[in-house]
Amino acid sequence: MTNPSYQDRGLLIVVSGPSGVGKGTVCGMLRKRNPNLIYSVSATTRSPRQGEQHGVNYFFHTKDEFFSMMEQGELIEWAEYVGNYYGTPRQFVEDKLNAGEDVILEIEVQGAKQVKELFPEGIFIFLLPPSMDELKRRIMGRGTETVSAIQRRLHVASSECKELSMYDYAVINDRLEHACEKIESILVAEHCHTSRVIIED
Amino acid sequence: MTNPSYQDRGLLIVVSGPSGVGKGTVCGMLRKRNPNLIYSVSATTRSPRQGEQHGVNYFFHTKDEFFSMMEQGELIEWAEYVGNYYGTPRQFVEDKLNAGEDVILEIEVQGAKQVKELFPEGIFIFLLPPSMDELKRRIMGRGTETVSAIQRRLHVASSECKELSMYDYAVINDRLEHACEKIESILVAEHCHTSRVIIED
Repeated sequence: MTNPSYQDRGLLIVVSGPSGVGKGTVCGMLRKRNPNLIYSVSATTRSPRQGEQHGVNYFFHTKDEFFSMMEQGELIEWAEYVGNYYGTPRQFVEDKLNAGEDVILEIEVQGAKQVKELFPEGIFIFLLPPSMDELKRRIMGRGTETVSAIQRRLHVASSECKELSMYDYAVINDRLEHACEKIESILVAEHCHTSRVIIED
Repeated sequence: MTNPSYQDRGLLIVVSGPSGVGKGTVCGMLRKRNPNLIYSVSATTRSPRQGEQHGVNYFFHTKDEFFSMMEQGELIEWAEYVGNYYGTPRQFVEDKLNAGEDVILEIEVQGAKQVKELFPEGIFIFLLPPSMDELKRRIMGRGTETVSAIQRRLHVASSECKELSMYDYAVINDRLEHACEKIESILVAEHCHTSRVIIED
């Protein structure tokens, strides 16, 4: 019997959840606390919010550029959301996983469904708000959207929560640090899965 | 939609692995670091080792007492190992789980198989030695056994490692603290499993 070891290939971790639940904030803190974690940067056609930087928060593209990426199979998922498009560049993700690095995707619920088809072995984490009232407060508190946009978001958020059963884990985002710690624990645990251990006879 | 919450019932965590891998040491440290974790105390017919206390490390019983517990269904698992019997009292475990407490069982590989049949929802963790040479050193280092007993243990340990696929997680016990931290992460992750989240429409 050879000595035991863990598999080299990295984990693909998908962090999703309803609009307004705080995916960006949670993933931002995860990134700070875990510099070795590869944080996939999405492509999007939406306008940058204040403080957002191209290549850091998102790759900001025109719709024409985005459609061309889609057609050439350069995105492992894409979604249209409230009039804007979001997507994840494929090559980047594959390269990092093959190099043994864990990659986190922070994506919308529609996109997560597509990733699940291409990467069924991914770890799917759904962020939940501590309450629906709190979700409403968070969406409104952003202050960047019209009342009708907020109402559309709330409606979408409520139906998105019904996709929960597709996910492996649900993390209630009650406090930012708690949510981060839970996701960190999930990563450690997933690396210990029996299927990732190699013992040869 | 109601606000999300996690299920109340506790987790049953089974920590097993080959003889000599350090189950007792790892579980001892887990216990110190996590006072809320319920550590199930096994019944055994073997003689106490130096420093072991009745009701703390084991419940020490005569063979007659032990067989009577088996016959009355008071044990959720039992095993004969190198001439001694080991078992886990049932009522204690059920009561704690129903009260929402996580229960850790530190048991031999044979016993873990029986628990898997009664509690398929349990979390099964297999401790692995960092190397087979190290396992040999640990078994010999105990200094409490004859050469032939050590050889029997090594032979059993090697075949026990083949049971790994029955387990959910494999934790390589390279350093005590690492192993503990991994098990703690597994517990946090398992509490976040989607199946444990309650959202009503």
